[in-house]
Formats: sequence, C-alpha cells, structure tokens
Amino acid sequence: MKIAIDGMGGDHAPKSIVEGVLLALEDFPNIEIQLYGKQQELQPYLKQHERLQVIHCEEVVEGDDDPARAVRRKKDSSMAKILEAVTEKRADACLSAGNTGALMAGGLFKVGRIEGVARPALATTLPTIDGQGFLMLDLGANADAKPENILQYAIMGYVYAKKVRGIDNPRVGLLNIGTEDKKGNDLTKQAFTLLKESNIHFIGNVEARDLLNNVADVVVTDGFTGNMVLKSIEGTAGAMMTMLKEAFMSSGKTKISALLMKNELKNLKGKLDYSEYGGAALFGLQAPVIKAHGSSDARAIYSAIRQASIMVEHHVTEVIKETIAESQK
Amino acid sequence: MKIAIDGMGGDHAPKSIVEGVLLALEDFPNIEIQLYGKQQELQPYLKQHERLQVIHCEEVVEGDDDPARAVRRKKDSSMAKILEAVTEKRADACLSAGNTGALMAGGLFKVGRIEGVARPALATTLPTIDGQGFLMLDLGANADAKPENILQYAIMGYVYAKKVRGIDNPRVGLLNIGTEDKKGNDLTKQAFTLLKESNIHFIGNVEARDLLNNVADVVVTDGFTGNMVLKSIEGTAGAMMTMLKEAFMSSGKTKISALLMKNELKNLKGKLDYSEYGGAALFGLQAPVIKAHGSSDARAIYSAIRQASIMVEHHVTEVIKETIAESQK
Repeated sequence: MKIAIDGMGGDHAPKSIVEGVLLALEDFPNIEIQLYGKQQELQPYLKQHERLQVIHCEEVVEGDDDPARAVRRKKDSSMAKILEAVTEKRADACLSAGNTGALMAGGLFKVGRIEGVARPALATTLPTIDGQGFLMLDLGANADAKPENILQYAIMGYVYAKKVRGIDNPRVGLLNIGTEDKKGNDLTKQAFTLLKESNIHFIGNVEARDLLNNVADVVVTDGFTGNMVLKSIEGTAGAMMTMLKEAFMSSGKTKISALLMKNELKNLKGKLDYSEYGGAALFGLQAPVIKAHGSSDARAIYSAIRQASIMVEHHVTEVIKETIAESQK
Repeated sequence: MKIAIDGMGGDHAPKSIVEGVLLALEDFPNIEIQLYGKQQELQPYLKQHERLQVIHCEEVVEGDDDPARAVRRKKDSSMAKILEAVTEKRADACLSAGNTGALMAGGLFKVGRIEGVARPALATTLPTIDGQGFLMLDLGANADAKPENILQYAIMGYVYAKKVRGIDNPRVGLLNIGTEDKKGNDLTKQAFTLLKESNIHFIGNVEARDLLNNVADVVVTDGFTGNMVLKSIEGTAGAMMTMLKEAFMSSGKTKISALLMKNELKNLKGKLDYSEYGGAALFGLQAPVIKAHGSSDARAIYSAIRQASIMVEHHVTEVIKETIAESQK
C-alpha cells in the first residue's frame, strides 16, 4: 500500500518525520512511502530506500496559517500534495503532523466527505491503566456539534473499534458530567436520547474521571469538550511527570531511588506515552487522513504510519461508508 | 464567626466531618461551629467543645436524591438546616460534602442570589506545579451558560482573587481549545468579545494543557466544560498515582526505592492533594455556601472550614455584591 506523508509538518520536522519514515520502512515491508517536502531540508536525514519516493514541493503550511485557506492558497505545499495524492488515488492514506485545522479543512475540501456524513470527526486511541485503551471522538474537528453529529461519531467509532480493534461488541459511552441518564447540558441530553434509540451498544454516560479506567471502548463527545479533556489528560500527565522527575533529582538518596526504579519508570512513561498510540484519524472522509501530534518524535511518526496502514488494511473508509448508508435507510 | 455544617453529607460522613470540625476548632479560635445531623450517628465521634453546638435533625439528603427537590422536600434535613441558618443570619457561612446538585438548588432556593447575578457559579482553587494555584469557575453549577454568564463568572473570580487571595491585578483567562483570539466554539467566541471589552484584566484564551503551569490566576468556563476538565485532571492524577504505587510495589528493589523516596512522594502527593485546597464555593449567593468534595476526609473538611472562614473574614459576598452592582451601572 502507498502512504503519502507531509515531511514539513510538526514541531520537529523534517528530522523526526524522515526518521519515523525510515523506521516504518524497515518494519513494514508492505508499505511504500511518498514523502513530500523541500528537498534540501529533507536531504540531511534521508537514506536511499527502494520503497521511498521523495517529491519536492516549494511551499510549507505553517502552524499559524489560517486553517480555512492554507491548503487552498498554498497549492504546492507538502500538505496540499498529500491530500491531492489520496484524492487522485495515487496513495491509499496520508499523514501530517502539521497545522491541525488546515489539515481538517484541506481534508474536507480536497478529499471530501463520505456521503451521508454531516461532519467528519477527529478520533484517537487513548491509553488506559490496564493497557486496553479506548477510542475517543470528536477531538476538535468541529468545535460545535449537534446531537445528530454525536450519533454519527458513535456509529463511526463503533465500526472502527469492531473492525480495526477487533472488539466483539464495543461499548459506546457518552462523555458527560455524571453517569445518571438525565445528567448533562442540552446537547448531551439530546444526544443521550438518540444514542439510546440507536442500534449500537450504548452503555450510557461516562465521566471524565473514569476514562483511564477502561469504562468504555468508544467515548463520544463534541469537539470542544473532547479537545479540552484530551488536553487536560495530557497536561496533567505531563505536569506529574515533571514533578516526579524533580522529586527523583532532588538529592543523592532520591537519585539512587531513581536508579532502582529505572525500568518501572520507563514502563510507566510508556503506558501514558502518546507516541505509542499513533495519531488521530479524520473519520468520515473519502480516504484515511491521519493527523500525528504536533510534537511527534520519530517513534510517534512510526506509530502513526502503522495506524494509517491498519486503516487501509481494514478498509475503514469503505466500512464507514457502508455503515452510514445502512444507518440512513 | 459562626459556621453551619452538614454532618451527614459526603462519602465518609459523619466520621470525617466531625473529625474535621474538631481539628478546625482547635486551630481557629475565632470560629464557632453549628453541626447539624442525626445525634446518634454523630455521637461516637464527638467531643465536648465550648465552641461546638450540635443540632439534631431527623432527615438526610442522600446522594441520589433529586437535586431540584431534595432540600424542599426534606425540610428537616441537615442540608436544609445549614442553608436555613445562613438565610436567617444565625450563621455566617455554611458547608456540606453532600449532594452537590441539591446544595446548589437549595442554595438558590433558600439563600437566594445576589441582585444582578444571573447564575451563581461553583468555584474552586486548583493546584499548580509551582504551588501558586488558580481559581476556576464554573465547575458545574450550570451545565449550560450564556456569554454574559461567563463574564459574570470572570467578575466574581477576579474580585475573589484580588480580595481573598491578595493578588494585585489577577490575570483572568478564558478556557478554550487554542490560545489564538478567534479560536473556540460559538460560546467562547462570544464570551471572548465580552471579556475583552470588560474592565477586568483579561489575558485571553488559555488551554487546558497549561492549567497546571500557572497560566492565569482565574480561569472561567461554562459549567459543563469546567466539570469535565476538573474531573479529567483529578482522574489523570489519580490514575498516575495508582500506576506509580504499583510500580513502587512491584519488586524488592522498587520497594527500597520507595523507602528512599518516602518524603518526596508524600510531598508530590500533597501538591496535587485536593484536601489541602478546601472546597468549592458557590459564588453569587447571598451568603457563603461551601461544597466540600464528596470524598472529603477530615483534613479536607478542615481546609473547607478554613476556606469558609476566609470568605467571611474578607466579606466576599458583600464585595461581589458591590462589584456586580458597579458593573451594571
């Protein structure tokens, strides 16, 4: 399969992107990569590889470019080019660690929505304490959502969890401020009713404080809330890691303690490490579009490429297409 | 000053409530406490104290009682009685660790709003890595909010941070999905404009991932989002503590490591310990109504009592009243 990759997007581009690509080429023999970006900037990190094709483009979508217009205006940017590649079926999936809003707007504009999907959603798998992980969406593709949008997020998430993650009858939960049926704001109360009436395995409201305890396989919410919760989890985990590090470095005694705990700490860090969980995928577009975290290192890019390949392998786009068509009969 | 306390509310009532009360009486010589609850259940934990008055009531508001009607129906409950005590000015502030919704609805119904305050808000001080802490509101008094409500939350939070926390010109931030001015959903975009035009020291949007890094002194948001973010922070911190504990207990070597780190770990736990930060206060009512965390231990009740006393000492209700009146001229 062919994956088109934006070599210029993200805080550590192009270095971490190229390195991630090379790692992925080594481990996944069925993947061919088309890497788009400024040749002279990619060059220092590149190695020759028979399944790697480098395509030069002049422009770069920057982090502060206006999301709505970036891809339209910068026609020769690496981001525009990867979207073009999937649209014209020269690639099966595409991936960028760059400007999230621009990638989403560009995805909508160039790749287009699956028929019947009102709003594509940004979805990612988040870690849980027991290592199972859960899928959460929308993480911010649409800041505002209607109850019907949330129902579609649930349908897309359910199908993904079932087909890609191999969960028999995935539990779908609605993120809310309490577990009782009547809890919530106007939006969640209405979404609750729609979900309850649907065919998916809806287990009711789930609370943010229980997310890491594996309360559901799929958690749906509006993009504003999803983004907030995601960033709160990331921020808190990061802050605690910082404090823990400071504690371990505070004296000779604690430094010995750190040495004794070395493997366990690495393990702990790994459990909450987003780089192991791949990127976020835009569900509901005509082809897999993957957004890797802006701060992605080589490992995170590697994982995001793996995720893209899994989505292609499992025909996620086609399955979502069929399921949405089915749901609207 | 006199503080009326619900002896029956919370997961560890009445034990932790009574113990917290006794701790507070020891440390704060200017506080008199009126403790409401079932005499026979309070008795085992009670000690005679000249500044403690125990008032028997027959009823208890339970966690699953309908919030809107609990206080109205259970007229002889400890929760109804503490609200009555502040309403009739027999107490200067009241405190409960029981049913949050019931306390809020009861507060509105019995104590009443300050004139001009459209919606009271639940506010609490959250920890930051540097130990400064910040005030966040609304944490769920109102699941839905209008832009004008958020402006009032900001005014109340600003006054509190200035008068009670002694911050010269508190930085007020709007919780949002990005720091750029135009980011957000319909609600935050409109609230941004109102805040920008106001007289308070508005520093713009702040992101959930930066909250623990002391980005603002006061952070305002709608109650749904505030509740989500609060619970995400709590849940993540709790999950990490669980994982850390498991890591430290996993072998003989790691147990030695834990011993060497004992003080530092206690310190770390203390930094994120909500029991040190008191309860959440309902801002915008005619008297201080404090909601202690449902899982409060004696230490948390002690801190919440201290917070109530600070609110009385600094005339928070009067100051909010004047500021709101001023803002509407």
